[in-house]
Amino acid sequence: MTAMNLPGELNPSVRLLMGPGPSNIHWRVYRALATPVIGHLDPEFIVMMDEISNMLRAVFQTENRLTIPMSGTGSSGMETCFVNVVEPGDKVVIGVNGVFGERMADVASRCGAEVVRIDEQWGRVIDPGRICDALGKHSDARLFAVVHAETSTGIMQPLEEVGSFLRERDTLFLVDTVTSLGGCELKVDDWGIDLCYSGTQKCLSVPPGLSPVTLSDKALEVLRNRGTEVQSWYLDLNMIARYWGEERVYHHTAPVSMLYALREALRIVLEEGLEQRFERHRMAGEYLQTGFGELGWALFAEEGRRLPMLTSVVLPRGLEDGATRRRLLDEYGIEVGGGLGETKGKIWRVGLMGETARKENADTLLSALREIWG
Amino acid sequence: MTAMNLPGELNPSVRLLMGPGPSNIHWRVYRALATPVIGHLDPEFIVMMDEISNMLRAVFQTENRLTIPMSGTGSSGMETCFVNVVEPGDKVVIGVNGVFGERMADVASRCGAEVVRIDEQWGRVIDPGRICDALGKHSDARLFAVVHAETSTGIMQPLEEVGSFLRERDTLFLVDTVTSLGGCELKVDDWGIDLCYSGTQKCLSVPPGLSPVTLSDKALEVLRNRGTEVQSWYLDLNMIARYWGEERVYHHTAPVSMLYALREALRIVLEEGLEQRFERHRMAGEYLQTGFGELGWALFAEEGRRLPMLTSVVLPRGLEDGATRRRLLDEYGIEVGGGLGETKGKIWRVGLMGETARKENADTLLSALREIWG
Repeated sequence: MTAMNLPGELNPSVRLLMGPGPSNIHWRVYRALATPVIGHLDPEFIVMMDEISNMLRAVFQTENRLTIPMSGTGSSGMETCFVNVVEPGDKVVIGVNGVFGERMADVASRCGAEVVRIDEQWGRVIDPGRICDALGKHSDARLFAVVHAETSTGIMQPLEEVGSFLRERDTLFLVDTVTSLGGCELKVDDWGIDLCYSGTQKCLSVPPGLSPVTLSDKALEVLRNRGTEVQSWYLDLNMIARYWGEERVYHHTAPVSMLYALREALRIVLEEGLEQRFERHRMAGEYLQTGFGELGWALFAEEGRRLPMLTSVVLPRGLEDGATRRRLLDEYGIEVGGGLGETKGKIWRVGLMGETARKENADTLLSALREIWG
Repeated sequence: MTAMNLPGELNPSVRLLMGPGPSNIHWRVYRALATPVIGHLDPEFIVMMDEISNMLRAVFQTENRLTIPMSGTGSSGMETCFVNVVEPGDKVVIGVNGVFGERMADVASRCGAEVVRIDEQWGRVIDPGRICDALGKHSDARLFAVVHAETSTGIMQPLEEVGSFLRERDTLFLVDTVTSLGGCELKVDDWGIDLCYSGTQKCLSVPPGLSPVTLSDKALEVLRNRGTEVQSWYLDLNMIARYWGEERVYHHTAPVSMLYALREALRIVLEEGLEQRFERHRMAGEYLQTGFGELGWALFAEEGRRLPMLTSVVLPRGLEDGATRRRLLDEYGIEVGGGLGETKGKIWRVGLMGETARKENADTLLSALREIWG
């Protein structure tokens, strides 16, 4: 490759990001990304690490000491939660009603776990009573895992009943909050969640690349008492906790620029206030869902359990999935997401997350759809 | 946490980054980081993925189809190379003459490998003849792994003899090029390297957070024929290759902003030209090493095997390690690295990597040291 055939200047089109993440990003976060890098052991950076942990605790609504961003995307956070507390032969119970529940079952089995599935139809919540019954039967389970906001279907799983059922038991409660964190109520401590991971590119409106995680003392106790080594060196929280904790022992070189971005985005989230932010997501989501109703498009997720930040909508007969999404992108600059797994070609997933969660954006999409399909 | 006690505006001090990475970053890369994000499945992004792969091939000097950046730091690239081709019970031979050789042995053992070590004193290369003898004896080894540029000691390991020895054998050749890629000669194909990983925050001058990897057909054949599942879902190249290949199947949400940055940095590397860039690193490193000699400071690494981009220097008696590095940082804005592992408190590691690899920066440091230490 010579200088002559190098790719040209970076010049992406402007997009309104209404897919299942990434979401639109505040200019202050871009400014943070462009801030000159300092070293990962610089005393000023160490201060920022503490600031990030503190703000993450506020957003997760937890006092958990180990509350940190993992240096990978949301899926690395999923893997982190499993590899650190699951040992070969452990029984784990997993609620599966979408792609991300399936993914958790896959990750758990790669840790050598015996996976017990609680399956439910996609687009419906898993009945908490049914979960508690199963967990009573499998009282030897190392953990129960479920997705709070299933990005593949658009439903919100209730967590409190299961959390309080598990609080006095040995089984850990693991929750995927990739799509919910920063967009709707999530009370890690009050709800008895022991391991929780998220992503940055959804309701926090940071580019993809980091995965905030938080672990309760109960989870850390299991980590400390395991008999085998954590199978992933990169995700081993024993070592990572020594870098984020007081010792500051080097583990890997932290992704400085992305952490700048996360720090700025968390400031923006907390300046707005969690309640106000959740309300903004609720209003925007409701407005969009009403709008789809007026267009005559059916919603996919169970009524009363619909996510505000991700609307799953059934494609009307005759509407071509790929071609129409391409047209939205090319002619209107709007990205929406297609279906994933068994809903591919049948639904769209429309995000109103973080900075994107505004009525105006819903209007932009609905107007475009009226022109194209109306 | 209320808006009142939120951390203040992001305002890091300006640093001259002369540690073992991150290195200083070109303003064009910062501009790329601040470029508005598009989706990870956007047709424009798919084009960029191909551009990045093509440029990485040029920098790795390889035709390997699977040449991609992993969504994690260099250590995730290390883990990627091991977990994809090593199965429990496999024998792996590892050259260990520094922290990163040790780390590879640790990662391999977490994959269930039987690890055979070839140890050498830190700061010295491992004799290639000795390696070939060991590999002749352990002809059933799945792979041999070694570090090209040991960031913990500052030595450059010769690779060609071992590469040509392994070319006609079943054992794979795995090389850590975290610190060498983009800073000195590295010919993946000519040297018979089968798996190779790097980092972005060294001689490529991108912020930390991505790990370019490349795998030969011989390595992919081993991956295809393995009898067990890859233990890491996040790093499973079977799936990741389908996202970076023609199918574009979603695996995880790619770190878009960091990939913008990598794309821009690779353009800068190739505009400069590999040979010119290597020469620039060579000249800067030689200049700094001569300068340390004039100051009366001894170099740690074996003569004739010293890295140009990372100089390891023995601290003179009486010079306080931590306090002096802190003074360099606070009074001069210069970051240098301390020793790692067994050299902690005994050596410094001074980087002249990527954008930092210039005579002027060496002069800045040498002048400061003359003032502090005389």
